[in-house]
Amino acid sequence: MKKTTLILGLFLYLSGSVLAHPGDHRIKHKIDSIISLMTVEEKVKLLHAQSKFSSAGVPRLGIPELWMSDGPHGVRGEINWDDWGYAGWTNDSITAFPALTALAATFDPNVAYEYGVAIGEEARYRKKDVLLGPGVNIYRTPMNGRNFEYMGEDPLLASVMSVPYIRGVQEQGVAACIKHYALNNQEKWRGHINVQLSDRALREIYLPAFEAAVKQGNIWSVMGSYNQYNGQWCCHNEKLLNDILKKEWQFDGAVITDWGAVHSTEEAVNNGLDIEMGTWTNGLTASESFAYDKYFLANPYLEGLKAGTYDEETLDEKVSRILLLMFRTSLNPHKPLGNINSKAHQQVARKVAQESIVLLKNQNDFFPINAGAHLKIAVIGENATKMMTIGGGSSELKAKYEISPLQGIQERFKNATVEYGLGYASGPSAYGRVIDSPLDQDSLRTAAVELAKKADVVLYIGGLNKNHHQDCEGEDRLSYGLPFNQDQLLEEILAVNANTGVILLSGNAVELPWLKKVPALMQAWYLGSEAGYAIADVLAGDVNPSGKMPFSWPKKLEDNGAHYFGELSYPGDSVNVVYKEDILVGYRWHDTKKIEPEFAFGHGLSYTSFELKDFRLISPKTLSEKEVIELSCIVKNTGNCSGAEVVQLYIGKKGSTVLREIKGLKSFEKVQLKAGEQQEIVLKVNASDLAYYNEKQQDWEVEKGKYYLYLGNASNAISFKSIITIQ
Amino acid sequence: MKKTTLILGLFLYLSGSVLAHPGDHRIKHKIDSIISLMTVEEKVKLLHAQSKFSSAGVPRLGIPELWMSDGPHGVRGEINWDDWGYAGWTNDSITAFPALTALAATFDPNVAYEYGVAIGEEARYRKKDVLLGPGVNIYRTPMNGRNFEYMGEDPLLASVMSVPYIRGVQEQGVAACIKHYALNNQEKWRGHINVQLSDRALREIYLPAFEAAVKQGNIWSVMGSYNQYNGQWCCHNEKLLNDILKKEWQFDGAVITDWGAVHSTEEAVNNGLDIEMGTWTNGLTASESFAYDKYFLANPYLEGLKAGTYDEETLDEKVSRILLLMFRTSLNPHKPLGNINSKAHQQVARKVAQESIVLLKNQNDFFPINAGAHLKIAVIGENATKMMTIGGGSSELKAKYEISPLQGIQERFKNATVEYGLGYASGPSAYGRVIDSPLDQDSLRTAAVELAKKADVVLYIGGLNKNHHQDCEGEDRLSYGLPFNQDQLLEEILAVNANTGVILLSGNAVELPWLKKVPALMQAWYLGSEAGYAIADVLAGDVNPSGKMPFSWPKKLEDNGAHYFGELSYPGDSVNVVYKEDILVGYRWHDTKKIEPEFAFGHGLSYTSFELKDFRLISPKTLSEKEVIELSCIVKNTGNCSGAEVVQLYIGKKGSTVLREIKGLKSFEKVQLKAGEQQEIVLKVNASDLAYYNEKQQDWEVEKGKYYLYLGNASNAISFKSIITIQ
Repeated sequence: MKKTTLILGLFLYLSGSVLAHPGDHRIKHKIDSIISLMTVEEKVKLLHAQSKFSSAGVPRLGIPELWMSDGPHGVRGEINWDDWGYAGWTNDSITAFPALTALAATFDPNVAYEYGVAIGEEARYRKKDVLLGPGVNIYRTPMNGRNFEYMGEDPLLASVMSVPYIRGVQEQGVAACIKHYALNNQEKWRGHINVQLSDRALREIYLPAFEAAVKQGNIWSVMGSYNQYNGQWCCHNEKLLNDILKKEWQFDGAVITDWGAVHSTEEAVNNGLDIEMGTWTNGLTASESFAYDKYFLANPYLEGLKAGTYDEETLDEKVSRILLLMFRTSLNPHKPLGNINSKAHQQVARKVAQESIVLLKNQNDFFPINAGAHLKIAVIGENATKMMTIGGGSSELKAKYEISPLQGIQERFKNATVEYGLGYASGPSAYGRVIDSPLDQDSLRTAAVELAKKADVVLYIGGLNKNHHQDCEGEDRLSYGLPFNQDQLLEEILAVNANTGVILLSGNAVELPWLKKVPALMQAWYLGSEAGYAIADVLAGDVNPSGKMPFSWPKKLEDNGAHYFGELSYPGDSVNVVYKEDILVGYRWHDTKKIEPEFAFGHGLSYTSFELKDFRLISPKTLSEKEVIELSCIVKNTGNCSGAEVVQLYIGKKGSTVLREIKGLKSFEKVQLKAGEQQEIVLKVNASDLAYYNEKQQDWEVEKGKYYLYLGNASNAISFKSIITIQ
Repeated sequence: MKKTTLILGLFLYLSGSVLAHPGDHRIKHKIDSIISLMTVEEKVKLLHAQSKFSSAGVPRLGIPELWMSDGPHGVRGEINWDDWGYAGWTNDSITAFPALTALAATFDPNVAYEYGVAIGEEARYRKKDVLLGPGVNIYRTPMNGRNFEYMGEDPLLASVMSVPYIRGVQEQGVAACIKHYALNNQEKWRGHINVQLSDRALREIYLPAFEAAVKQGNIWSVMGSYNQYNGQWCCHNEKLLNDILKKEWQFDGAVITDWGAVHSTEEAVNNGLDIEMGTWTNGLTASESFAYDKYFLANPYLEGLKAGTYDEETLDEKVSRILLLMFRTSLNPHKPLGNINSKAHQQVARKVAQESIVLLKNQNDFFPINAGAHLKIAVIGENATKMMTIGGGSSELKAKYEISPLQGIQERFKNATVEYGLGYASGPSAYGRVIDSPLDQDSLRTAAVELAKKADVVLYIGGLNKNHHQDCEGEDRLSYGLPFNQDQLLEEILAVNANTGVILLSGNAVELPWLKKVPALMQAWYLGSEAGYAIADVLAGDVNPSGKMPFSWPKKLEDNGAHYFGELSYPGDSVNVVYKEDILVGYRWHDTKKIEPEFAFGHGLSYTSFELKDFRLISPKTLSEKEVIELSCIVKNTGNCSGAEVVQLYIGKKGSTVLREIKGLKSFEKVQLKAGEQQEIVLKVNASDLAYYNEKQQDWEVEKGKYYLYLGNASNAISFKSIITIQ
């Protein structure tokens, strides 16, 4: 028993002393001492899957397995050991939190932290060491089937919202795993498409959220993406992983593949990959998906090590990263216990959902609807009753419950007569294929219009859903318009009842041909377990909407920068996709090209009104690049009810020698104000954050000269403009 | 988040401070404060299964689930959530340790501790909170299909061997769960048979090992048995659970059912049961086996609580015990990490196996066999190659490897020509039914005899196996003789080659009609992963056998006390079984009734010889019942090689007013001696341990008067006899 006791003692010593201070300089020596006990075979076993969601430990040494779980919005149900079926457990129903687009729309880093704590607690209770999220791929085009999982189009917004999420998760002894690194901005051809873009677009638009996760969030793991960049797959991309992530940013965690995203042992070994997970892996059939020994980082690596093709130093570096990940998670004796489905978590889910809903249009105060009145309300649309935690791909959840919008409305509007018409029916959710509904669409539409005719108010609850070719992993949308003939349905409803408010559930913008005819429009995302309650809270005015658009909503698809340049720019020619709009993504495109969006980035109405006044530049008008730009203004609630406003600071270079966006978001703050209340807001920006990425110097550079400051409550609603000079 | 934080804080505080000192007086208050946060529904959920091997926690409060695993000899493979199929995981192959009969045969509490540590470490690594073992039901009859899982016929031996096992397991933060409490001494009709026996037999023979587990081992959980006692099922038996276990012995852990052993909500609630686990439960069909809400301690209890039939105080007491169990296991932040399949564990498995093998007969030094000689060895018998970790019921294991006796012999006897003949073939293992082998038995036998004819030495490796009606849970054996026509096979082998040594693998005695004809006989049990190596170690003389019989081996079945009185005494009339032999179990019967056994309890030969000399009574010849009897002797290795001897002290009352056994084991010590070496052994016995259970007074009583001390190396090999007086 001596050796066991020794090893145990070692582990206890390590875990006891190291974990309180993960940065402790002794940890490297300690990890090295463990590595010295391991055989080459044992080391290689740490580097690849042993089941769909775990990688092996070293059983004889007591090194634990690593257990991972999808996904960003809740801890996924237990999956079978060797296939994608659900395992049929009964202890894995969880709290479904709003999808991350919704979180981004809150513009509230405090709720992002609460979200992270709550989902981290759920992961910890479920004994997961790595939570596969957040997702921060940039919203480049509304066609991307997976936008709903991400944080919108702006690199600063995605950074500011994901860092506290990461912190909240990791405080539970669970590693967050930011994904998908990098440039997985479309699902179409995601498995092979090679992304071509400028270094500037890469650095200024697509990487900042990852960089913030590493540098500010101290994230413990990163997931590589399926696609290629620079002609090399991203899960073994030398520039992305070795040069930028590990060397430049000094990332000390583990790089995990997306499932089945490896294509070469040699590149995986040498280009910075640490753990290979799998769906079905290159060269293996679906029925061999459990042949984990055949993975690129399994026997092929082992054989290369034995043949001397690969050196053990590289291997040890990977093992060392994985051990550090374990010390931060499963081996941390101070980690909390976690819990699931607590009232607190449900409250977080509801709060995020409430804060995320964006009131896009609200003519004549259509919303809120008086819950005390004896109204006849017709609720129409499939999304009023559809389970939105089901489908969508890997982010699908086994929610303990999901309150539908209809249920939320019925419970809140007790004095009203609420009648429901489906209006249309999509087929059931099916990963990778569309199944048509067997219901007769004409009859559904006719019945709904009849219902609308007799109602005092119509609440149309439609949008996209989590089906294939909608907001769903694996493929992109097929058109910008609403699916399932919803436009016709809405036109017919509006023809019989103009008193119709529209609530869209989606993770993407859609074409709105009937927009002028509807008095009110609300964007309500995928809101998780508490969806219906949160929507009813806002509809009834119990909660004043305060969400802001985390992406620009183009009037038509061609108004989006990615689509302006034709097919090679999106979706590509199946080999390459070229990001021709360069850095001009989202509002940067609309602003610079003077193309008016339907709804601008940062836009969102309230049931009250706000005034921005007394703008004041606190810092000098001329600064060095090492100084901090500081300004203030007063926000006043000038309406009749409490509400929250998001003050947004954009900055743009005047007369740059290179292409620059008119303005980019540099800071924002959400402020809660009672009716009549006002508050001073101070915003600070490091002058160094004004840098652009100089491609020739391959480094960030702050141009000297004049910059415009734009302060407002949307990217197209600027109250104050000022000018500063960087010397 | 406030409430979550509060609860988390509470748990951290609790787990941090309480667990270092589980006996801390503050723990009750802390557990009470957690209970105060729980709803009645949540409390009831803790009391019954949520899957085949887990019970629920309180997810919202972060109270963990409780994960249990069979069994006593290794941590069982992962089982499906809702049925008994294996889950198909690949991380659950473990070290198979020798079955507990083998452990008992070592007569070595030090290896029992090592065994406990090793299996506890394996359970901990596998994230199990409760290990369902050890089993200490008394070996009453060789017909019991489950004897192989237990510790033999003597209450002191079972106590002394199980306490360190328990300590070793529990030091890993894993609860041991002693079973089956009580009187599950036969598998036939185990689900309903009512055991009738005297209070003396209960207290003096059948309960002492459980009592020691509680009082000396501080065991954290106890498993109730399937059968009835006193007309009441043992999982809700007022006398056994409430009166004796919880009140008299002050057991503070949780009582867990055997799977599906509950028959009444009312009795389960009131008679001391804490957790109900299930196979298929009374009133539920096999296909409803997952209907956990219907369990007796589920909805029926909840409804009774709501109706006021049951009080919440009783409920809280159960919850309090379960929470304490959690604080000792899953919630203990100081628990080790565990490990599986380490070299150390394999060494423990081999060491226990080596020490357990009993050399029963060894005419003309047949064993050891010279491994250097160029012998022609015929190995004959199915058990030389049969996987013995498969079958047997719930103790079946998914061993990482199992070395067969044939493999062990082939590897060790490299100079010999080893040829193998199956000789006979049983069918495959099948729980609950016998499957005949499709092979032609006559051909197998003829071929084996041909092989034997040509060999220098025959090693016959037979015995029982883990099939239905052999050494297997769920039913008893059908006859005392060897199965599969092995007697005929052996007679035919012996007719052609008298130079035949027999090695029996079993957990039970068998009839030995050919015993006089064989020069040597070895009892080798079910030895787990290292079986073949341990057997080869002993065959080659690398290890000198030192195992002793943990049960008496009768010449014929009727010589066993349980079988002497006819069917009502065993197996009973299907309603009752009456233990007519009373306290005279095993050697107590043989001694008292002067029925010579084939091999006596405590018997076991060695390749060397030992002398016991210089017996000395250290304590006075007359003592009070509060004093300690102390004696010494010198053990000398008088032979040519190292070896171990077990010095055994038996004591018997002279001229008792009640029926008493001639002698009962009161102390023993195993001593390792080199050739020629000698050592003084001091044995101590509390005079109070001479008590018998006075049925009228319902208490233990030490009779005054004279007692005989018997010191020897087997129950029938007494070197010294002495007399003392208790005054």
